[in-house]
Amino acid sequence: MARGNTPQRILAASLTMFNEEGVAEVSTNHIADEVDISPGNLYYHFRNKEQIIERLFDDFEAKFYDTLTVPNETPDIEQIWLFLHLMFELINEYRFIYQDLVFLVSRQRSLARRFRRIIGRKVEAGMAICRLLTADGIMQVSHADEIDTLAQQIAMTATFWLSFAHVRSEKPDPSATARSVAQVLMLVAPHLIDPARDHLLALAREYR
Amino acid sequence: MARGNTPQRILAASLTMFNEEGVAEVSTNHIADEVDISPGNLYYHFRNKEQIIERLFDDFEAKFYDTLTVPNETPDIEQIWLFLHLMFELINEYRFIYQDLVFLVSRQRSLARRFRRIIGRKVEAGMAICRLLTADGIMQVSHADEIDTLAQQIAMTATFWLSFAHVRSEKPDPSATARSVAQVLMLVAPHLIDPARDHLLALAREYR
Repeated sequence: MARGNTPQRILAASLTMFNEEGVAEVSTNHIADEVDISPGNLYYHFRNKEQIIERLFDDFEAKFYDTLTVPNETPDIEQIWLFLHLMFELINEYRFIYQDLVFLVSRQRSLARRFRRIIGRKVEAGMAICRLLTADGIMQVSHADEIDTLAQQIAMTATFWLSFAHVRSEKPDPSATARSVAQVLMLVAPHLIDPARDHLLALAREYR
Repeated sequence: MARGNTPQRILAASLTMFNEEGVAEVSTNHIADEVDISPGNLYYHFRNKEQIIERLFDDFEAKFYDTLTVPNETPDIEQIWLFLHLMFELINEYRFIYQDLVFLVSRQRSLARRFRRIIGRKVEAGMAICRLLTADGIMQVSHADEIDTLAQQIAMTATFWLSFAHVRSEKPDPSATARSVAQVLMLVAPHLIDPARDHLLALAREYR
């Protein structure tokens, strides 16, 4: 275990253990053991496991809002790709939140509200990008509610694709992040007009 | 609590509690309490909580394969709709499996294999339907791998949409199943050719 101040070491160990074993399986005693401190020392820094989870969620949330700003001018396909890539890397870093999402938010109500805002921001960013692409004539939809549905589908894919990949594969898949990006790009593709569509499909294929 | 034989009452109570509180939060003592029997009586019927989960999974799996047969002739849009509706009702009935999926399959390896087969069947059915629609000239894709991606997207949506809806809404949403069906139909829509596309969009809009 790398050196560092004790609260940081507790948080780093908790993140790894939550990601690998799931929140429910990890107790504060396990964490103290892993960091090689006494349970009393851990309780000196954190009231309980919920507080550790909340502190990790704070970090995730701050990084999320740093990464996901709603664009106000049309991004090109490479920018969308890069941005999706950063997003999935972040989700992967804090994957315990996503893998145990339903029960995490039902046990800790304050996280529920905050996570709903995060999904809201994902939908909003998806809609902003689609509207910009439509206004620029790069994207075509037959009805405005197709953009709404597409943005929700993108947000859901960004929320659960890594869990889906995790459940589907017998061993951890190092290319899961790149494949997640490709999957989102492929959602957008059928609405694009050539040559943007061809360009995006070629890009997506590289990452599958 | 309705009468009935004890194992069935244990399974029914477990299903309700798992769905509402999550597997990790429910102990065999809680279940025995709810059924109004002694823990010893519960252990006479089931070795442990894992065995209860496995028995519930058996029921879910049998119903799943009854519902989801891979079609060999082109279904019409209404048939696809009905079939999706039955699928989401079943998922809703056994939603603890889906809400706690990642950790359920990591704790019980035999369920992991069985659940992977279930997702495989969803992808297979999605691909079969898309290929039939394409062969009939109702659906158009620019490249064969679009069908593969679309089928995976359908399978993922069928796996996680209810969890997504659950996390997003503050209270239980009685129309979540109908909205799930609409969301899947909207995935297929951009690939359809009019009038099938218009017909499907109109149908999807009724259920949103």
